[in-house]
Amino acid sequence: MSDSDVASAVEPGLSLLRGADEPFSCVSAELQLVEENLIRAIRSRERDLTNISAHLVHSGGKRIRPMVTLLAYFAFGGKRIQDIVDIATAIELIHTATLLHDDIIDGAETRRGKESAYKKFGLKSTLVAGDFLFIKAFEFAGKFDETVVQWTADACTLLTEGEILQGLFNRNRAVTLEDYLEIVKRKTASLFHTGARVGAYLAGANSALVEETERYGLNMGIAFQMVDDVLDVVGHPDLLGKPTGMDLRDGNPALPIILAVINGDLAVSEAFNCSTPNEQQIGAALAAIKAGASIREARRLSKRYAEAALVSVTKLPASKYRNGLKSLVQLIVDRDF
Amino acid sequence: MSDSDVASAVEPGLSLLRGADEPFSCVSAELQLVEENLIRAIRSRERDLTNISAHLVHSGGKRIRPMVTLLAYFAFGGKRIQDIVDIATAIELIHTATLLHDDIIDGAETRRGKESAYKKFGLKSTLVAGDFLFIKAFEFAGKFDETVVQWTADACTLLTEGEILQGLFNRNRAVTLEDYLEIVKRKTASLFHTGARVGAYLAGANSALVEETERYGLNMGIAFQMVDDVLDVVGHPDLLGKPTGMDLRDGNPALPIILAVINGDLAVSEAFNCSTPNEQQIGAALAAIKAGASIREARRLSKRYAEAALVSVTKLPASKYRNGLKSLVQLIVDRDF
Repeated sequence: MSDSDVASAVEPGLSLLRGADEPFSCVSAELQLVEENLIRAIRSRERDLTNISAHLVHSGGKRIRPMVTLLAYFAFGGKRIQDIVDIATAIELIHTATLLHDDIIDGAETRRGKESAYKKFGLKSTLVAGDFLFIKAFEFAGKFDETVVQWTADACTLLTEGEILQGLFNRNRAVTLEDYLEIVKRKTASLFHTGARVGAYLAGANSALVEETERYGLNMGIAFQMVDDVLDVVGHPDLLGKPTGMDLRDGNPALPIILAVINGDLAVSEAFNCSTPNEQQIGAALAAIKAGASIREARRLSKRYAEAALVSVTKLPASKYRNGLKSLVQLIVDRDF
Repeated sequence: MSDSDVASAVEPGLSLLRGADEPFSCVSAELQLVEENLIRAIRSRERDLTNISAHLVHSGGKRIRPMVTLLAYFAFGGKRIQDIVDIATAIELIHTATLLHDDIIDGAETRRGKESAYKKFGLKSTLVAGDFLFIKAFEFAGKFDETVVQWTADACTLLTEGEILQGLFNRNRAVTLEDYLEIVKRKTASLFHTGARVGAYLAGANSALVEETERYGLNMGIAFQMVDDVLDVVGHPDLLGKPTGMDLRDGNPALPIILAVINGDLAVSEAFNCSTPNEQQIGAALAAIKAGASIREARRLSKRYAEAALVSVTKLPASKYRNGLKSLVQLIVDRDF
């Protein structure tokens, strides 16, 4: 894949977000630098490593984590563009590495509407390519001070601990809303709140504002995952890039499933608890989730976290970047992909 | 596993090395600090991550990579013990992470005489535990200057590129001695030469001596792998902690196999090229390797690289640490485990 192929290949994901609103035009030049960093980072003399990395890096990811990082930095008047682009790249690389390893763990067939790397390139090379992307991330992160390195490593540790915790609650009806939040904080919110706090910190914000920005990332990250879980039930497969109902099929403790189980829905409870649910069970459970209160309740919860994120935004100094952070939350809650 | 269990569990590997000679008593206090670092590093609130990491970290690894790092540092008069202990820990953690992922890739049943983590804990948790150890390594490495971070990342990149290259030559009779050396430089020698150069660099050695120390690590690392490959054929399973003939069973392009194939040995060539060789084929191939010149030739080659490492040692200032580096090479070539 040549660099120009790549440039056009990454457009869809970004333009979908940009099309809905234009709150990110203020960081679009920096997002382009992140893309260029990513393209350089995945070059290896072993073609497999480059191909597998490119398969995912150029599959139209929404780049929300780099966006949060960049917006948080510029919201506090940060000026060293290359620095913030580098750490935003590191965060996106970590995200991409975990997607490769997650697909192995879930045995996923598709990812972002394409055949998953795991399915296309096999376990061995995909595992090594995930390691390769982790390493590249640390090459970018390693040049920063100990605080940034530590926070980045902490985010990664959270990701692994989240993966293990999620595994413990796979097809496990004992899962509570509290467990769910703990999994989501570790697995999804960690890179959002780390990007946010690193951005504010590197721009020289005081520690109270760094914490406020981190809180923004945490809450919007939780809202993001909750909406993801809702879309897995009610979204459109073409927009999602994957079939609906994947969480039920994989036994993931996703929010609408957990809420339905807590509400005593037997069809959902059975399908979730079954080691190999058949299509009839999946269909009945999905219908039950749609007919019940879980989706409404999950949306309500996601809005609560989104609102908490918006409260944090108001504490930041007024700027177009602050507006960007605000619009991002709105887009995340309203999105249908 | 309590900390005191751990202390006794790590002894066998170290004492085997120490028993043959005592060249490492000069860094035994620092090696103990590496052990303590390792114990702290693998603590996680997710018990699976700690257990899987402990399974491998405490299974009697020889800690040769930290030894090289420490000896190289002290050979140039380095004084900041915690620094060198931390980077030596990072290098051992990277090695351990790759062992976890390698066992998944090879589907290995045993490792160091115990059931492999992959077999005992399953693919998913073992994969995540490997990521966890990579992250911990970068936590230790990330506090150093950009040069050290870059060299450490370069070593990791080499490891992944070596894994891919080895995969390309799995059960592939086209493999040449040149391909073999490239695989070994990437997969085995990278952490040795990185430990050596980082040690010399952090102690303030001039760039010519840093390069000389790196060359020591490179050549002793190659010798180390060559002896490993020989022992896979002629070693004793109890001492090796695994059955012999694993390279032939796994289709690994190991030195005695490659030499026999190049020498036109049909039994070896057939067993190596076969996707599922039976025990009769393995037995015939092992017998052919033992009867032919490959083992002798492989030993001769390993000695050549060991001698090159010893030439580098003579360029270092005289000290008990330099003697340690020298004895280490001798031990590696003479070892039967």
